Amino acid sequence: MGKEVDVSTMEAGGDRDYVDPPPAPLVDIDELGRWSLYRAVIAEFVATLLFLYITVATVIGYKHQTDASASGSDAACGGVGILGIAWAFGGMIFILVYCTAGISGGHINPAVTFGLFLARKVSLVRALLYMVAQCLGAICGVALVKGFQSGFYARYGGGANEVSAGYSTGTGLAAEIIGTFVLVYTVFSATDPKRNARDSHVPVLAPLPIGFAVFMVHLATIPITGTGINPARSLGTAVVYNNNKAWSDQWIFWVGPFIGAAIAALYHQIVLRASARGYGSFRSNA
Amino acid sequence: MGKEVDVSTMEAGGDRDYVDPPPAPLVDIDELGRWSLYRAVIAEFVATLLFLYITVATVIGYKHQTDASASGSDAACGGVGILGIAWAFGGMIFILVYCTAGISGGHINPAVTFGLFLARKVSLVRALLYMVAQCLGAICGVALVKGFQSGFYARYGGGANEVSAGYSTGTGLAAEIIGTFVLVYTVFSATDPKRNARDSHVPVLAPLPIGFAVFMVHLATIPITGTGINPARSLGTAVVYNNNKAWSDQWIFWVGPFIGAAIAALYHQIVLRASARGYGSFRSNA
Amino acid sequence: MGKEVDVSTMEAGGDRDYVDPPPAPLVDIDELGRWSLYRAVIAEFVATLLFLYITVATVIGYKHQTDASASGSDAACGGVGILGIAWAFGGMIFILVYCTAGISGGHINPAVTFGLFLARKVSLVRALLYMVAQCLGAICGVALVKGFQSGFYARYGGGANEVSAGYSTGTGLAAEIIGTFVLVYTVFSATDPKRNARDSHVPVLAPLPIGFAVFMVHLATIPITGTGINPARSLGTAVVYNNNKAWSDQWIFWVGPFIGAAIAALYHQIVLRASARGYGSFRSNA
Amino acid sequence: MGKEVDVSTMEAGGDRDYVDPPPAPLVDIDELGRWSLYRAVIAEFVATLLFLYITVATVIGYKHQTDASASGSDAACGGVGILGIAWAFGGMIFILVYCTAGISGGHINPAVTFGLFLARKVSLVRALLYMVAQCLGAICGVALVKGFQSGFYARYGGGANEVSAGYSTGTGLAAEIIGTFVLVYTVFSATDPKRNARDSHVPVLAPLPIGFAVFMVHLATIPITGTGINPARSLGTAVVYNNNKAWSDQWIFWVGPFIGAAIAALYHQIVLRASARGYGSFRSNA
Repeated sequence: MGKEVDVSTMEAGGDRDYVDPPPAPLVDIDELGRWSLYRAVIAEFVATLLFLYITVATVIGYKHQTDASASGSDAACGGVGILGIAWAFGGMIFILVYCTAGISGGHINPAVTFGLFLARKVSLVRALLYMVAQCLGAICGVALVKGFQSGFYARYGGGANEVSAGYSTGTGLAAEIIGTFVLVYTVFSATDPKRNARDSHVPVLAPLPIGFAVFMVHLATIPITGTGINPARSLGTAVVYNNNKAWSDQWIFWVGPFIGAAIAALYHQIVLRASARGYGSFRSNA
Repeated sequence: MGKEVDVSTMEAGGDRDYVDPPPAPLVDIDELGRWSLYRAVIAEFVATLLFLYITVATVIGYKHQTDASASGSDAACGGVGILGIAWAFGGMIFILVYCTAGISGGHINPAVTFGLFLARKVSLVRALLYMVAQCLGAICGVALVKGFQSGFYARYGGGANEVSAGYSTGTGLAAEIIGTFVLVYTVFSATDPKRNARDSHVPVLAPLPIGFAVFMVHLATIPITGTGINPARSLGTAVVYNNNKAWSDQWIFWVGPFIGAAIAALYHQIVLRASARGYGSFRSNA
Repeated sequence: MGKEVDVSTMEAGGDRDYVDPPPAPLVDIDELGRWSLYRAVIAEFVATLLFLYITVATVIGYKHQTDASASGSDAACGGVGILGIAWAFGGMIFILVYCTAGISGGHINPAVTFGLFLARKVSLVRALLYMVAQCLGAICGVALVKGFQSGFYARYGGGANEVSAGYSTGTGLAAEIIGTFVLVYTVFSATDPKRNARDSHVPVLAPLPIGFAVFMVHLATIPITGTGINPARSLGTAVVYNNNKAWSDQWIFWVGPFIGAAIAALYHQIVLRASARGYGSFRSNA
Repeated sequence: MGKEVDVSTMEAGGDRDYVDPPPAPLVDIDELGRWSLYRAVIAEFVATLLFLYITVATVIGYKHQTDASASGSDAACGGVGILGIAWAFGGMIFILVYCTAGISGGHINPAVTFGLFLARKVSLVRALLYMVAQCLGAICGVALVKGFQSGFYARYGGGANEVSAGYSTGTGLAAEIIGTFVLVYTVFSATDPKRNARDSHVPVLAPLPIGFAVFMVHLATIPITGTGINPARSLGTAVVYNNNKAWSDQWIFWVGPFIGAAIAALYHQIVLRASARGYGSFRSNA
């Protein structure tokens, strides 16, 4: 059962050339005794901390520069722009998934963890530990930005997620649902064991489309909600910025992403994987 | 016929190291009985819906922000820019081709389906079902954007494709033909069985250049036609925006892409693949 | 001599695990009788045509939009920006090298062809045929842009390369030499047979860094010369724009790139490949 | 011990499927007699020279264009923007690591060399030679930019790193520490022998996330320090620009990156690699 078998199976189409791992148990006692679980939790904490630190610093720095230049002699487009902010969110997810995929699976987002838990790819215990680590990491990451530049931080909105003026709560919720669906659907596609069986290097390549999914959703929904699609990101900024509007909208950034992740898990497990068989990519008439 | 044979053949140059799959039949009765066909049609519908939702939301959001900032106190460059819009179209094609390649082949565009049908890589029945799914998906995707932000949607042109003021119909048509040629030529290059035989991971890597092809064509032709090169995208925006100019120009965004795709199919099948032999990439003096 | 040998050799370090192909002859009679040569020449023509069409259309469209918005009510940053132009040049090279690597080696640039000829990787006959095809393709690509939008084309400078006001001829020449060095050095690194022996998929991955090299050089030298580093690109725009300054500076965009390519060939062949041995990437203390 | 073993081991989880290379000695006498060491030092010199030349030219060119357009008739967004500058730094690291990974390991940054030395992946002698070569290369690269465009160079700040007005020294130092941590953590993740054992093509793919790490950190910290995270880059610009503020802040751009690199080395070696075992990427419940 080596490389040759995979290749020839793929060329011939036909039988399943992969093995679905068994569903993860809700509580895995063995797991609790392994260092690899705690190492994974630490890696999720550190990755989410770095994610929030870099992205919120980019948001604050952009607003500071735009502000400074509007009243000064520089050109009006002094900062990295909203395009640069979207790159910061997408690019950080790319590199952090790349760095932590081999340690924790590279979730860095409670909605991703929730989706993978629904698909029984992580145990309940692991899922809960990851979510706590992600939220704590996010709070610490935003706190670092505030600690370093508290004046600018408060003045420029703290990177918190809120439904923008001119959009209804329903629109904000829908934007979060569909945005998270795009992200979690990409995660499922990238980590499908069918794909892994054929391409042992998928773990190396998967982070790029996952990062791009985050980049794309930010391009589309920054004007609507500032783009959450990651409850840890929304919680971390709300805790540190501690603003009324950020708190009253907070539920949107938990309910929306969890619904989106659940729909993506259902779509992938029920529609796309039903009677899944070896079906050659790009050869649609196998 | 495993990995070793591929590698040694490649290094020695010489004989064909790949097998062209037989041409797809026009109507494949077997295919109609398989769940994989309907799953593929669903995947095309969902992918085109997401494509239009994200890209049209980006267009509307950009115009809203630029408008707001022109009359407000913010800097003039509030939005993601035309560069951000071009990224949205290209980046979404990258991730959606990545996600659906193993399910439907990842067309997400009737012109791509038409080109692959001409090259006999998909059956007529599959091609027609895909095109219907793509058009319905596009309409639903744009309808979501309108439903969520109807005020802004109408005010900012609905993302519809039209030949811009100052350009003739012929220029618009030519821009669509060449733009689609660039895209479909890239699709053919990426999915060539010659390349697949050598690199089993091509399906994982091919989406990136395909997405970049869409990004590039948008950079060049957004000022001319808003860039169609995808009849489903042009139809979806026209149906939902329902504007005279969008309808009277609509034929350009079907005739142009189909001609471009046909030329790409001819170029690839007749010029590039004629007497195709094992010819090492980057070794031009084999 | 299959996959296993490569892998084990790589892990153990040690002996050469690759074979340098013999130097290409100056004139290869056999080659002249093969369809693959003429197919490669056609592919170079088409690729250079598409390269110039997309990039010059991006330049003209950007200037048109910026101009329109400066005098109108839109924001001042209407176009894709110089960053978008740099992406157009780099991104097109990425996708065109990807598409033509297996057919012609993917040069699309007389300076690249010249460098590979100096390193004896292509025959003299092939090099000359490629350069003629590249120049003709470039002229046709620019002519298409002019044909479609002649008014804007002339008004916005035709995308021609010229040394900008405030820079000396020597600075322009040096910028072209170093810029082409960066590009051709990347091409040599990406197509090194040492690397190929280890990674059979390099031809699939090499186009991305090559495209990025073009992107980077454009970011740095658009303000100085508009960035040539490709004599076919500079000739094509000069022929169609037919402006005095473009013609009197034309020699810079041939001499500079050819010197840069020659230095890159020397650096790679003499310094980097001298006594080249199996030397594990990223393991600097093998 | 070929490909099959790797694959089956990976799928089964379980035993270590890789071998940690032994720690590099502090002084390796053998190494000093090998051409490959000196070739690597030359490659580091050339790569750092190109890195500074392209990036500082981008900074100067951006400022020149923005300045020209602010006072002229062009739009205010004439240059590549801060986003373009961030791309220049990240993109150059991507292509230079790609080009030099097989020759020197592709450090191009004394902080990276320091981190890899702490992890005993390079000998002390090699580390010192690399750092000297990197600093000399950086000085030469900036000197080229100044030589070519001395008027603009002095007027636009020479690309030197300084803590910006409004930020404290501590904030600047912290920004450098965390930024370098992000970079060196990515380098360690990308070059982990665990990953290499599974994916022989990692050296080809690793440069992209490493380049993105540099891109991300620039987005976040250009407003704070101009972003160093590379002592050679900070020294080279300080030497050539020779400004009081650049010199008095210089220590921040050595101490910060070295601390960040040390923390990354500790985090990777002690937390992530402790009891490291074959642990399948993306399968978090192995």
